[in-house]
Amino acid sequence: MCNGDDVTCPHFEKHRQAFLETMDHERRAFMKSAFVAAGGAAALGAGGLSLVTPTMAAAAEAKQPGQKSHHYLPASAETVHWGYFSKLLKPQVTVASGDYVTIEALTHHANDDSERMIKNDPGAESVYHWTKDKKNVNRRGAGPMDASLFGRGAGEGLGVHICTGPVYVTGAEPGDVLEVRILDVRPRPCANPEHVGKAFGSNAAAWWGYQYHDLLTEPKPREVITIYEIDASGDRNWAKAVYNFQWVPQTDPFGVVHKIIDYPGVHVDHSKVKKNYGVLKNVRVPIRPHFGVVALAPREVDMVDSIPPGYFGGNMDNWRIGKGATMYYPVAVEGALLSVGDSHASQGDSELCGTAIECSLTGTFQLIVHKKSDLAGTALDGLDFPMLETKDDWVVHGFTYANYLKELGPKAQSEIYKKSSVDGAMRDAFRKMRQFLMHAKGLTEDEAISLMSVGVDFGVTQVVDGNWGVHAIIKKEIFAGT
Amino acid sequence: MCNGDDVTCPHFEKHRQAFLETMDHERRAFMKSAFVAAGGAAALGAGGLSLVTPTMAAAAEAKQPGQKSHHYLPASAETVHWGYFSKLLKPQVTVASGDYVTIEALTHHANDDSERMIKNDPGAESVYHWTKDKKNVNRRGAGPMDASLFGRGAGEGLGVHICTGPVYVTGAEPGDVLEVRILDVRPRPCANPEHVGKAFGSNAAAWWGYQYHDLLTEPKPREVITIYEIDASGDRNWAKAVYNFQWVPQTDPFGVVHKIIDYPGVHVDHSKVKKNYGVLKNVRVPIRPHFGVVALAPREVDMVDSIPPGYFGGNMDNWRIGKGATMYYPVAVEGALLSVGDSHASQGDSELCGTAIECSLTGTFQLIVHKKSDLAGTALDGLDFPMLETKDDWVVHGFTYANYLKELGPKAQSEIYKKSSVDGAMRDAFRKMRQFLMHAKGLTEDEAISLMSVGVDFGVTQVVDGNWGVHAIIKKEIFAGT
Repeated sequence: MCNGDDVTCPHFEKHRQAFLETMDHERRAFMKSAFVAAGGAAALGAGGLSLVTPTMAAAAEAKQPGQKSHHYLPASAETVHWGYFSKLLKPQVTVASGDYVTIEALTHHANDDSERMIKNDPGAESVYHWTKDKKNVNRRGAGPMDASLFGRGAGEGLGVHICTGPVYVTGAEPGDVLEVRILDVRPRPCANPEHVGKAFGSNAAAWWGYQYHDLLTEPKPREVITIYEIDASGDRNWAKAVYNFQWVPQTDPFGVVHKIIDYPGVHVDHSKVKKNYGVLKNVRVPIRPHFGVVALAPREVDMVDSIPPGYFGGNMDNWRIGKGATMYYPVAVEGALLSVGDSHASQGDSELCGTAIECSLTGTFQLIVHKKSDLAGTALDGLDFPMLETKDDWVVHGFTYANYLKELGPKAQSEIYKKSSVDGAMRDAFRKMRQFLMHAKGLTEDEAISLMSVGVDFGVTQVVDGNWGVHAIIKKEIFAGT
Repeated sequence: MCNGDDVTCPHFEKHRQAFLETMDHERRAFMKSAFVAAGGAAALGAGGLSLVTPTMAAAAEAKQPGQKSHHYLPASAETVHWGYFSKLLKPQVTVASGDYVTIEALTHHANDDSERMIKNDPGAESVYHWTKDKKNVNRRGAGPMDASLFGRGAGEGLGVHICTGPVYVTGAEPGDVLEVRILDVRPRPCANPEHVGKAFGSNAAAWWGYQYHDLLTEPKPREVITIYEIDASGDRNWAKAVYNFQWVPQTDPFGVVHKIIDYPGVHVDHSKVKKNYGVLKNVRVPIRPHFGVVALAPREVDMVDSIPPGYFGGNMDNWRIGKGATMYYPVAVEGALLSVGDSHASQGDSELCGTAIECSLTGTFQLIVHKKSDLAGTALDGLDFPMLETKDDWVVHGFTYANYLKELGPKAQSEIYKKSSVDGAMRDAFRKMRQFLMHAKGLTEDEAISLMSVGVDFGVTQVVDGNWGVHAIIKKEIFAGT
């Protein structure tokens, strides 16, 4: 049965209706919790539970239509853009502030095992369709369409993530802040009847991984794909490995040979690889379903490689950006233009080998515009970086360069890969946490610095996305005293 | 009432007896839990709860005396060494493998507020006593005794921590592994009757901190001390700031002026500083009592600055090294020579401003020798770095240089401060976690690398100790599958 998300299903309308009714329950439940999150009685205490005060929530609410809508954005060749962000993209859906939108995200590693991650799934088949005569999504990456740089393919794979969207949010303008509440995250069940009730993901230890030039065993270097199985019913909170194989050259339908994983979505011919079953035996990887990419369109240039994250969010690869989390982004272009992709079943802090468990997921989001004119004196005033709020924590995100598109000049999109550094990201995370504590929490610089040393945890978000990341976490309860 | 740890108390013997009886209860309770931790029925399962298998535990037990002893090592001018580690130090106590030892650690920042952290405390007064005629602990640091380098004082402050010990563990030899179980950690109550029931700590945002040359507000640069209050009864699980002040030049009893915090233990004259009360109002810092320094004596040189951590442990500044944690260290010299210091009431990952909440604590440890000959084929075979085990996690510790004393040549102890880098520590943590997963968990390199990317979290331990730290955490439950 489809979940109201498969337009080819003969009972689509009925299923869609059932889905929307379920959503309606969720929505009502959420409205109650939103009262708490956005203020309510609790926020009147000294600490507060959200960066959004009751006043801010009321100001945002006043600009929203009385009736909130729920939108559904399936993934298909028409609704995705692959490997890049762009302020020029035509919106796939237009929503009002306060509206809900369910977005299907497809992993760009599905073709590592097409039997498990594409076959019989109309959305995935639509996006991945590529024969010698037809390539449904031709551009993959922000590079030249004629592949004149490396000959890899259209877009050159300079950017790899399948991004669904963009979503245009009415009323969002540069200077505003977009609040993105992640209400639900679900794995995309395998559509192949041979694997009912399961979902699958791929982990690629790839050439852009931290280990690639630092291997102990032969052959060196090498790329290795590990396929993981996830329980699609949600009963089991861990993933397990199914098998792995070493990448061998793969020829795409246009005849280009990919000796390494240099272009996204190339079908892996399983007759050419040697699969090792029984790997990671008895190992249970705790699942942490989240979106590696939640991006607003950047303002600086028209075509932006999807890999390096920045002030606009993008490929932040923080596993905490999952169900129950709220993100705050500075809006850079009219309509905000939100896209979602790079869905992960799990990832550790560092995403060491280059990827997570790359697994298609569907998320439900609520999008709320906070107008610049309502932000004066609030915690979100002047926000110039992506900020994460969970039930327990506030998290700031530092990068090697806070805004590499601006800081590194006209060749920023290639330069950033030469300048990757955890040290740079640590410096940026320090400055952002200081800014947050001084600005949002009203501390002096001396208070902020002492508190950072005794009560803030800095972690390595990722060391594989060009613009490397360090996040800093502060617990909300620290401010709960009276 | 003293806790059996104040030899000047008129009822010392009675209190000591009461303390030992309590310990005896703890010991018995621990022996039960040790059965679980060290093997027992649970470890027969696939996952296991400890790196010490039942066979290893039995082999270690067989070499221990039938009756375990409990030793007590108070802090006094006679039992501490200040600012350095040395394989030449005379042991303060000799224990058998399996014995318990309670060790008092004094913070080297107690003189930031002597009224709250030294006054009426015989141990602290003994260590800190310094008049123009007498300085009880003259050497502070591994530098020259004649202060010929900088004129700061004996030892030059090249190393700052008050370390209690060393403890000689009978039977420990180079190549063995010392298991250090931290059974209990308690704050040292303020001995000044004006502050009954409280304990205090100091946080110094100092010249070696990450922020020092990157401040926003004037005067720049500056050093700031914040005094924190901790509940000594243990009822309250958070600390709060009492006041702060900016460091101003302080003259020590020998007439040396300390314009910055360049020598440990200098008394701060409170008539010369301007105290700001009401700082960090309503802020509650969750406490994480732990020992910044737990060190075995290094083999490479005779006098080692206590600041940079290394394979021998030392100033690791990981707040997870607290009650309930077990550390494993490679033994480098005969008797292991364990010292404890740099006690912290709380710290965040990064210890950003240079210090934690530096607060005197008393810990109870059990020390167990695992002989090299018993380690073949076990998880601890060939261990060449400090390894942390908690109830839930295994944690490896990477440093900018895994063994800076060996890697950086004859001038290693000054060179290390010029080469501090999170990037270096990340690389080392990656390699150590891979080694752990391959060696201790029997994974292939490809399995280890995939698992690191999807199930291991890398965090920034500290960016202030010369040899900077990144730790990598893997959950034990990952291996609990069958």
